[in-house]
Amino acid sequence: MNFTSKISIKITLIAIVLTTFSCKKETEVNVINENETTTNQEHPNLILTAQGVQDIRAQLGNVPIFDNTLQKVKEEIDAEIALGIDTPIPLDYSGGYTHVRHKRNMVVLQKAGVLYQILDDEKYAKYVKDMLMQYEDMYKMLPLHPKTRSYARGKLFWQCLNDSNWLVYVSQAYDCVYNYLSEEERNKLETNLFRPFADHISVDSPQFYQRVHNHSTWGNAAVGMIGLVMDDEELIDRALYGIKGVALDTKAKDDDGGFLNKDGKAGFLANIEEPFSPDGYYNEGPYYQRYAMYPFLVFAEGLHNVKPELKIFEYKEGVLLKSINALLNLSDADGEFFPLNDGQKGMSYYNDALVTAVDISYHFGTQDPGLLSIATEQNKVLLDDSGLAVALGIKNGKAKPFEKKSINLSDGPNGTQGGVGILRNKDIELVFKYAAQGSSHGHYDKLSYSLFENGEEVIQDYGLARFVNIEQKGGGNYLKENKSWAKQTIAHNTVTQNETSHFTGKYDIGSKYHSDLHYFSSDNENVQVVSATETNAYPGTEMLRTMAIIYDKDFEKPYVLDIMKVVSNKANKYDFPYYFLGQVLNTNFDYKVPETLKALGSKNGYQHLYVEGIGKSKEENTKFSWLNKGKFYSLTTVSDSNDDILFTRIGANDPEFNLRREAAIMLRRKNTKNTLFVSAIEAHGNYSPISESAVNSNSNIAVLKVVLDTEAYTAVSITNINGRTKLFITANTNASKEVKHNIKINDKNYEWSGSYYFN
Amino acid sequence: MNFTSKISIKITLIAIVLTTFSCKKETEVNVINENETTTNQEHPNLILTAQGVQDIRAQLGNVPIFDNTLQKVKEEIDAEIALGIDTPIPLDYSGGYTHVRHKRNMVVLQKAGVLYQILDDEKYAKYVKDMLMQYEDMYKMLPLHPKTRSYARGKLFWQCLNDSNWLVYVSQAYDCVYNYLSEEERNKLETNLFRPFADHISVDSPQFYQRVHNHSTWGNAAVGMIGLVMDDEELIDRALYGIKGVALDTKAKDDDGGFLNKDGKAGFLANIEEPFSPDGYYNEGPYYQRYAMYPFLVFAEGLHNVKPELKIFEYKEGVLLKSINALLNLSDADGEFFPLNDGQKGMSYYNDALVTAVDISYHFGTQDPGLLSIATEQNKVLLDDSGLAVALGIKNGKAKPFEKKSINLSDGPNGTQGGVGILRNKDIELVFKYAAQGSSHGHYDKLSYSLFENGEEVIQDYGLARFVNIEQKGGGNYLKENKSWAKQTIAHNTVTQNETSHFTGKYDIGSKYHSDLHYFSSDNENVQVVSATETNAYPGTEMLRTMAIIYDKDFEKPYVLDIMKVVSNKANKYDFPYYFLGQVLNTNFDYKVPETLKALGSKNGYQHLYVEGIGKSKEENTKFSWLNKGKFYSLTTVSDSNDDILFTRIGANDPEFNLRREAAIMLRRKNTKNTLFVSAIEAHGNYSPISESAVNSNSNIAVLKVVLDTEAYTAVSITNINGRTKLFITANTNASKEVKHNIKINDKNYEWSGSYYFN
Repeated sequence: MNFTSKISIKITLIAIVLTTFSCKKETEVNVINENETTTNQEHPNLILTAQGVQDIRAQLGNVPIFDNTLQKVKEEIDAEIALGIDTPIPLDYSGGYTHVRHKRNMVVLQKAGVLYQILDDEKYAKYVKDMLMQYEDMYKMLPLHPKTRSYARGKLFWQCLNDSNWLVYVSQAYDCVYNYLSEEERNKLETNLFRPFADHISVDSPQFYQRVHNHSTWGNAAVGMIGLVMDDEELIDRALYGIKGVALDTKAKDDDGGFLNKDGKAGFLANIEEPFSPDGYYNEGPYYQRYAMYPFLVFAEGLHNVKPELKIFEYKEGVLLKSINALLNLSDADGEFFPLNDGQKGMSYYNDALVTAVDISYHFGTQDPGLLSIATEQNKVLLDDSGLAVALGIKNGKAKPFEKKSINLSDGPNGTQGGVGILRNKDIELVFKYAAQGSSHGHYDKLSYSLFENGEEVIQDYGLARFVNIEQKGGGNYLKENKSWAKQTIAHNTVTQNETSHFTGKYDIGSKYHSDLHYFSSDNENVQVVSATETNAYPGTEMLRTMAIIYDKDFEKPYVLDIMKVVSNKANKYDFPYYFLGQVLNTNFDYKVPETLKALGSKNGYQHLYVEGIGKSKEENTKFSWLNKGKFYSLTTVSDSNDDILFTRIGANDPEFNLRREAAIMLRRKNTKNTLFVSAIEAHGNYSPISESAVNSNSNIAVLKVVLDTEAYTAVSITNINGRTKLFITANTNASKEVKHNIKINDKNYEWSGSYYFN
Repeated sequence: MNFTSKISIKITLIAIVLTTFSCKKETEVNVINENETTTNQEHPNLILTAQGVQDIRAQLGNVPIFDNTLQKVKEEIDAEIALGIDTPIPLDYSGGYTHVRHKRNMVVLQKAGVLYQILDDEKYAKYVKDMLMQYEDMYKMLPLHPKTRSYARGKLFWQCLNDSNWLVYVSQAYDCVYNYLSEEERNKLETNLFRPFADHISVDSPQFYQRVHNHSTWGNAAVGMIGLVMDDEELIDRALYGIKGVALDTKAKDDDGGFLNKDGKAGFLANIEEPFSPDGYYNEGPYYQRYAMYPFLVFAEGLHNVKPELKIFEYKEGVLLKSINALLNLSDADGEFFPLNDGQKGMSYYNDALVTAVDISYHFGTQDPGLLSIATEQNKVLLDDSGLAVALGIKNGKAKPFEKKSINLSDGPNGTQGGVGILRNKDIELVFKYAAQGSSHGHYDKLSYSLFENGEEVIQDYGLARFVNIEQKGGGNYLKENKSWAKQTIAHNTVTQNETSHFTGKYDIGSKYHSDLHYFSSDNENVQVVSATETNAYPGTEMLRTMAIIYDKDFEKPYVLDIMKVVSNKANKYDFPYYFLGQVLNTNFDYKVPETLKALGSKNGYQHLYVEGIGKSKEENTKFSWLNKGKFYSLTTVSDSNDDILFTRIGANDPEFNLRREAAIMLRRKNTKNTLFVSAIEAHGNYSPISESAVNSNSNIAVLKVVLDTEAYTAVSITNINGRTKLFITANTNASKEVKHNIKINDKNYEWSGSYYFN
C-alpha cells in the first residue's frame, strides 16, 4: 500500500500545479485511496497494474504510438459520453440495434475504465459507474433473451457467447473503477449483476460453458476475469477447471453440428490443452483462433498479474505465445488470415484481437523485434503495460521486419493429427491443409490448398457462407449455404470422388480422422515442398498430394507443381477443380458453352455449381490462362483425351443470393481406379490499364510430363519454351531426409538423398 | 546562332572540367555545332527548345520531381541500351512481339533523344542514330504489314494508327539528335525513312488520314511533327489542312462502323474544330480524348515553338487547353476516367498522355496551381520546358488542390449537341450522358448515367468489351461482344423500349441526333441537378430524365433522386435496369430463382443477359439493398404491382468468356404508354471485415411518392424513417432560371423561381 500513497501524492501535486478547480477532485481521490485499503488486492490488476499505470503516466507524451492510440481512444470515448448512456432492453439478433448497442457498450466501458486509470480523470470513472448501475438495474429483472435460435441463450444477447464477450470486457472496466466505487456500490454490482451474470453463462448454461470450444473459452475467461476482480476463488476455479461435478452428454451436438463435449473436458486450461497443437496451431483455423485469442490472452494476462504462481504463459510449453506466432504466419502478405475452414475473408492482423496478441506476445514473451514491425503497421497498441512496452520498443528503433517463411504447423493436442503447411517463395504463397476436422467449424477439404500472389488470391478457398454481423443476411449468422456449399469438398481445391464429400460430409466420421504429413521440406530456398496423405476420406481410396513452389531462373516468378496421386480399390469418378479468380484469357482445348445453365448435380455442393462450359482435354497437356488484378496466370495440366473439362460458376440454387458468383475450371476423370493429377500453375507478367501494356502474358511451360509413376516414385519433367527441361522426383513411400535414392528413368540414373529430387 | 555557340562553349567547359576522357567527345560536339549552321532552324525545337535545354541544365539537381523523373528515365534507357537494339521484321497484331517491340522502340527513342539533350551524353545520341539507321535500312524494303485486318494497314504495325504513333514519338527523337547527325546521315534518314513514312500514312492512306477522327489526329500530328523537324512546309501544310485535292466517299465506313469522312473535312485544325465542344468535351468521350490528347498537345507544342504566329493554343478560343480541364473533370475521385462510350476501365490521369496534358496546360495556359497538385500525384513531369515549369511550381510550393465540382460540358463543335453533366456532392459522383452519338466509339445510351462513391463504381457503366493490347483476347482488339453487348442500350442505365436499342442500334441514324439539356443547376451546394430530353431515340416516344444528388442533413450521405418521364404515342414495354456492383443484401419483394438460367432475349444485348430471379414489385415502393466494397446501398423505387422485377447477370451467349459476370436489377413495365420511373439511390454506412461491425446498414427512406405529375411539373416526396418529408418539384417544360412558379399540391401552395423546388 506504500505505493498507492505515492500515486496519491503525485496526483495531489499535479492537481495543485495545474488547476485551481481541482480541490474537490483531489479530495475524492484521497477518499478513493482510503477505500482501497479495505480490499485485500490492489486494483487495477487485470490488464493494467498499479505499477504499470505509474509507468504509463510517467511516459505520457513521449511514446508516439501509445500517445496517438490514447488520443484516439479519448476522442472516441468523449464522443460516446457526450451521446449519453443507452442500455436498451435486449431484443435483437446480431446486427440489430440492441445487439449492436450492448456490444458497443462493453467496448466503451473497457476503454473508459482504462482512460480513468491513465488520465486520472474522474469523468470516465463516473461514466463507467453510471452505466454499470444502469446494467445492474436492468439485469436483475431480465429474463432470457427473447430470440430463441441459440443452443444457449444469453440475457443481454441472443447467445451466451455474446454475454461472455461482454463480461470479458466489462470485468476490465470494473477493475479500473474498483477503487473509485464505494464498498456498497461494489456489493450492489457484484450481487445483482456480476455474480448472477457469471452464473448464467456457466452453471446455468453448461452446454455452452462446459466444453472445449471457442465459445467456452470466452465463457471461462469471462467468469475467471470477473472472479479475479472480485477476488472470488470459486469463480476463478470454475474458470480454470470448469463447473465441478457437471458432465455433459458426450454425444450431444451444438447449433453448428459440433459435439458439445466429446470427452468431458472443460475449463480454461483444458481449452488451452486441447485445441492448440504444440506448434500453436488452433484446430478451428486462424479465423477462429483470432476470435478465441482475445479471451485466451487477456485472461492469461490477468492470471499472470494476479496469480503469477500459475505461470500461465509457460503452460503447455508456452503454447499461448507460440500460437500468436503461428497465427501471424497464417496470414498472407497483406496480413489477412488464410480462410481455412469457416473463415470470413478480410479478417487480418489489423483486428484489435491481434493488437492484443502482438503486444502481449512481445511483453510477456521474448521481445521479438519482428512483432514491433507488425505493431507499427497496426498503428495502435494496448493501453496497458504491454502496449507501453511495444510503444517504447518502436520508439527506441528496435523494430525489425517480421519475416514470414515457409512453415509447417502440426495439428492436434500432441501435434500428431496432421497439420497445415505454408509454402512461401518470393511473392507466391501456398497454404496446404492436411489437418484434422477442425471442430465444428471444419470443412471437408482434405489435402486442399489455396494460392496467393503478394496477398491477392489466385486460386481461392471460398471461406464461409456468412456475412458476419450483417443483419440483412440471416441475422448475420451462418447461412444455410455454409453447410450445403462452403463446407462441402467440391467447394475446395482437392479431389471429390463420385460427387460425394470427404467422410460423406459427416462430422462425427470426419472428427475421427486426420491426414498425415508425408514430408515437409523448406531447406532449399528455391524449392519448397509439402506432401501429405489421406486414407480415410474415401474408404478404399488413398490420396497422396505433393505440392511444391519452385523458383527456376528460367521463369519470371516461382511456379507451383502439384502432384495428386490417387490409388483406389475400385473405379471412381474424380472431380478436380481449380477455383481461379479473374477473367478467362484462353485455352488450348475446345469447349462449348451451353444454351441454358444447369446445376452440375443435386447435392453435396454440386447443386450450387452452374456448368458454363464443357470441353475435352488435349492429349498431353491441357492449358488454361487467366488474368486477375493485373497479373497473368497459366495452368498446365497433364491430361488424356478422356478427361472432361468443365467451366463452373457458383450460384445455382441460391435463392437469396448468398453466394458469390465465382468460377472454377474442373477436370473430371471418369471410371478410373488409380490415377495421377499433375499440374503446374504459373504466375507471370502483368497488365496495367493505365499504360495498357501487357508484359509476359504467356505461359513459359512447353511440356509437362509424367516420366515415371510407381508406388515408390513419381517423376515429372517440366520443359520450358526454350527447350530446357527440369525434373522433379518425389519419393512416395520412404521420404525421410536421410534416405538415399537411386533410380533409373529412361536409361538415366538419378541419385539423391532425401524426400525429393529437383534439377 | 549566337545562342548555340554559348551552349557549345558551356559543353566544352564541362567536358574539360569533368573528364579527361572527353577529348574525342569534345571534338565531335564542335563538329556538330558546325553542322548546325547548315540548317536554317535551331534544334531542338519541338518539345524541347534550345533555351529550354539551357534552363533545364541550369536547374538540374534543384527540382526534385524533375530530377526524379530524369533519374528514372535514365535508368530505363540505360537498361534498354544495355539490352541492345532490336528492330524485328513486322509480323504481329497488338500484343505480339514485333508490335510490342516497335511500340517500345518509339518510346525509347524519344526518351533517349531527350536524355541526350539534357545530359549532353553522346551515348544517347549514338543509340538513337544507330536505331534510326536500322529502321532506315529495314523500312525502305518493307511491304505492307502482313496482317490484313485493318482498313488502313501500316508497315511497322498492322494499322497506320500505330505507325503514326511511332512517327509522333520518333520525330521528337530525330529533333533531339538532329545536330548530332551529319547532313549526309540526315538526308539518308529523311529520304529513305521519314519522308516515305509520312507519305505512307497520309497520301497513301487517305481513308485513314483524311478524316476527322482520333486516328487522323495521330496521322496529322505525325506528318506535321516530322515536317517541323525537317522544315518541310509541304508536310506541315498537309498536317494542318489535310491532303490537297483528296476527297473521300462521304458514305464509306471504317472498321468500327464510323463514317470515314461524312463532311469532307480533314487536317489537324479540322480535327480540333470538329470533335471538341467549346467547353473542351471531346465527342468520343474521355477514354479516347486521353488517347488523342497526346498528338494534339505535342504537335501543338511543336507548332507553338516553331510557328508561334499560328497561335495554336488560342485556336477556337483556346479549346485545346480547355479540353484538358474538361478531361480532368471527367475522372472520378481516384483520377480514373468515367467509362463513357468505348472506354477501358482503369485508365486514369496517371497515364503519360495526361502528364503531357497537365504540364502543357500549366506551362502554356494560366499556371493553374490546381494542376500542380495533379502533377504531384502523377509524380512525374515531361522532360521539357513545360515539365520544368511544373517541377519548379511544385518546388516553390504553389500547388493547390484541384477541386472537382459539379460541371456541365456541352457536346458538339458549337456546343449545341447535348452534353455530359457531372454532379458531385461530398463523396457521391454521378455522370449523366445526354450527348451526341460520340463518333464510331459511341454507345446507344441516351440519358444514361453511372454512379460513384469516392472513386468506386456503385451503379456501373459496363465500358467496352475489349482487353486492350492483351493478345489472347482477340489480338487485343475490339471483341464482337463490344457491338453485341457493350454498345447496346440494355447494357446501360437507361430505358430500353420494346427490347430495341436507341436508334435501332444504327450508327447512321444515331449520328444525326443528340439529346438536349433541359437544365443544369449546381448553385445550391446541397442540391445538384441535371435534366435532359431525348426525343429521337425511339420515334414517337419522348424521354425527360431529371437526376439530382441531394444532401439532406437527415441522411448520412447525399442520395440520388432519379425521375425518368416517358411519354409515348403507343403502348410499349420498358426495361429500366440498375447495374449495381456487389452482393445482394435484401429486398422487400418476393422473387423466385429459376432452376436453369436462360437468356432474357435473343438480340440487341438481351441475348447476353441471364435471368437469375423473377419477382413482382410491391404496391407503393420496391426496395432493394446491396453491399459493395464495405459500403451499403439501397434503391427505393416507386412501383405498382404490375411491374416485373428481374435479376439479371451478364454472360449468356459468351462463348469465349469475354464478358464480366456482373449483375443488374431491372424493372420491366409492360403495355404502357406514358409512365414515370422514380427512384432514390442511397449510399449509407459501412462494413469492415476486420472489426466485423456493420454501421448504418439500412435505408433511411420510409416512403418515396409521386405527389404530382403533369405535363408541366413532376413532384416527388421523400419521407425518411423519422417521418420527416421533403418535396422535390421539377419543372418539365419552362425550366429557365428566371421563371416563377406557383402551384398547388394537395391544397398547399408552392412558390419558387427557377428550374426546381426542394424543401
